[in-house]
Amino acid sequence: MIIVHKYGGSSVATTEKILNIARYLGKVKDEGNEVVAVVSAMGKTTDTLIRLANEITENPDKREMDRLMSTGEQQTIALLSIALQSLGYPAISLTGRQAGIRTGGHHTKNRIEEIKGENIKKHLKEGKMVIIAGFQGVNEKGDVATLGRGGSDTSAVALAAALDAKCEIYTDVDGIYSVDPRVYPQARKLSVISYDEMMELAFLGAGVMEPRAVELGNKYGVEIYVGKSLGEKNGTIITSREKVMEEKIITGISVNENILMVNVEDIPTYAKNVYTIFEEAEKKGININMISQNDVSSEHGSFAFTTPKTDKASLEQVSEILKKKFDRISIIINPYVVKVSIVGIGLISNIGIAARIFKVLSDNDISFHQVATSEISLSIIVDEIMGKKVAELLAKEFDL
Amino acid sequence: MIIVHKYGGSSVATTEKILNIARYLGKVKDEGNEVVAVVSAMGKTTDTLIRLANEITENPDKREMDRLMSTGEQQTIALLSIALQSLGYPAISLTGRQAGIRTGGHHTKNRIEEIKGENIKKHLKEGKMVIIAGFQGVNEKGDVATLGRGGSDTSAVALAAALDAKCEIYTDVDGIYSVDPRVYPQARKLSVISYDEMMELAFLGAGVMEPRAVELGNKYGVEIYVGKSLGEKNGTIITSREKVMEEKIITGISVNENILMVNVEDIPTYAKNVYTIFEEAEKKGININMISQNDVSSEHGSFAFTTPKTDKASLEQVSEILKKKFDRISIIINPYVVKVSIVGIGLISNIGIAARIFKVLSDNDISFHQVATSEISLSIIVDEIMGKKVAELLAKEFDL
Repeated sequence: MIIVHKYGGSSVATTEKILNIARYLGKVKDEGNEVVAVVSAMGKTTDTLIRLANEITENPDKREMDRLMSTGEQQTIALLSIALQSLGYPAISLTGRQAGIRTGGHHTKNRIEEIKGENIKKHLKEGKMVIIAGFQGVNEKGDVATLGRGGSDTSAVALAAALDAKCEIYTDVDGIYSVDPRVYPQARKLSVISYDEMMELAFLGAGVMEPRAVELGNKYGVEIYVGKSLGEKNGTIITSREKVMEEKIITGISVNENILMVNVEDIPTYAKNVYTIFEEAEKKGININMISQNDVSSEHGSFAFTTPKTDKASLEQVSEILKKKFDRISIIINPYVVKVSIVGIGLISNIGIAARIFKVLSDNDISFHQVATSEISLSIIVDEIMGKKVAELLAKEFDL
Repeated sequence: MIIVHKYGGSSVATTEKILNIARYLGKVKDEGNEVVAVVSAMGKTTDTLIRLANEITENPDKREMDRLMSTGEQQTIALLSIALQSLGYPAISLTGRQAGIRTGGHHTKNRIEEIKGENIKKHLKEGKMVIIAGFQGVNEKGDVATLGRGGSDTSAVALAAALDAKCEIYTDVDGIYSVDPRVYPQARKLSVISYDEMMELAFLGAGVMEPRAVELGNKYGVEIYVGKSLGEKNGTIITSREKVMEEKIITGISVNENILMVNVEDIPTYAKNVYTIFEEAEKKGININMISQNDVSSEHGSFAFTTPKTDKASLEQVSEILKKKFDRISIIINPYVVKVSIVGIGLISNIGIAARIFKVLSDNDISFHQVATSEISLSIIVDEIMGKKVAELLAKEFDL
């Protein structure tokens, strides 16, 4: 069996930790497995590199940023391979390019387009462990290209898919919790969760897994283990809905603080105008979520949407542009909000769930600014100071 | 005119220094030149990376060391390219592989075998400055391979040869001195020096230039400028002997402290036995210099040689092996010596020079352990504590 392991930045932050991982991988190999390991940059290396670039300019060239940021992973793969060889295990490090990871898209946020696994398989066949730089591939020009935030998870799952392998993601949390334990300490760890639910939780801000990685797992049927300690298998398995035996109505609650709400009022309610707004936002690369519109019947309407807090500066630029285009328009940016999301397969069929959620809010006099639903999630925008309380109340209500 | 600039680690140690270099390169470009820059890793980055590997093991795998050490230069090229672009100058960074630098030999000490300059020329033609990672190339397996100590100098001169360009090496000393100013503060800076003399000085331990770089310059007729400040051209030009107009008898004196002397006594004086000794030394990668033999007429003889002090541990291992092979052998390792070398074209023709050197030593009661000569140099092994004095006396004698 081929197993693709993935170790994040905090797991490889020191040479001591790297040696521990090498010892563990040695054990896995001794048990008769073929081992591929995908690693991130050590500790805060990537942040340090980004800071260096920002000392030079606020807007560094993105091709060069990819070059710069991709060096951290190259250091880790060399050190882990050195550690394995020092313990007597044949090993070889491969960059994304050497591992056959072809990417497409834009620098700093590439997608994986293809993985040619031949080189990896050749080395595995020769009895080596293969250590691969996460977060990176090579684009059609032969330049190194990175996959954006959390990209190493995506590398690991994509490699597991290409190699028909199992995937184990080791991180600094010991599994997936129904609610972030920092928000709700009584939260329980899930032993299993479906791809759908995990994707919703991930998109909604539960930081453990990169949504694209889960999506790939779903697409190619790669079962993903997420855990902390080396050896004991007490983390969470992400798998298909059919394999999640005991379905709970509600699986988890996420609280996303990186959000701000934008209210746009008094614009002529033509589809064209709404498009203009989103077009300007897209030009600035602003990520828009949770769109809701009111008063569509009147001539001048209003609508609202949310964006990541990190897009605030770009949003203010868009606001200036729009004020020139629409003379009566009013744009209010409210950063003092959080999004609480309730995720569960039960939301599909179980009609009473939404009512139970709103009863909890009503019983506790909690007002909300916006509501949005997807097939298996329901998100509510509330004032920042209420976020934790709402999560707690709902976690109790649904016994998470 | 294409100009290949090279900036060493201390020249690019901070983002502020990198921005200064970018401003200077911008000026060079504005003056109508095509600019290629070869850069080293920032400050002590490479040392830090080596230390990380040594935290894991004393004998890290060399392929992986090349991977690890090559990341520092990749960071610098990205940052310098970012800096140039932030100032409005089109620029692109290339790794050794992307610059077409093909290497051969052993990991951590590769040679440049070929440079395919097409990719560089293409980018220059498009009006870009091309920033290239020094110290690295790609081997026949497609793996990154480093050129060993001082390799960025070699990269720069080799690229200048391939591009039919001028070469300017910016470092932390402001030119080539006849004697290391730390040893002899009155030493004068040379405005010009021949390849031959520079090579001798470099081999003999004057740390400014990597000998292989000078050798390449000689082979391909690349004039090399070595200096410190950006802009003022008050450094030293390394060029062919014919262009060094005012030939001095003695050009320079070097004092090499990284040396130890080995006396081997009482071995049967057959060529085969001497070969055995050097064979064992070579197996351990020990670099042997200044071999001298005495008493070849008697049945048991003795000879001496020098090695870098850094090879002491390996040398002791060799000593143990040899003691098992030859029962009467005596091997004495003396690390308390330095090598003082006098270099000058004048040594070829000017018969009185050696006499003048030994008169100085004799007049001052300085004893020496070993003497060796090449075409244009004469080296003397003296006790460590006498090194500086010998250099001073000879510098005065030859008015350096």
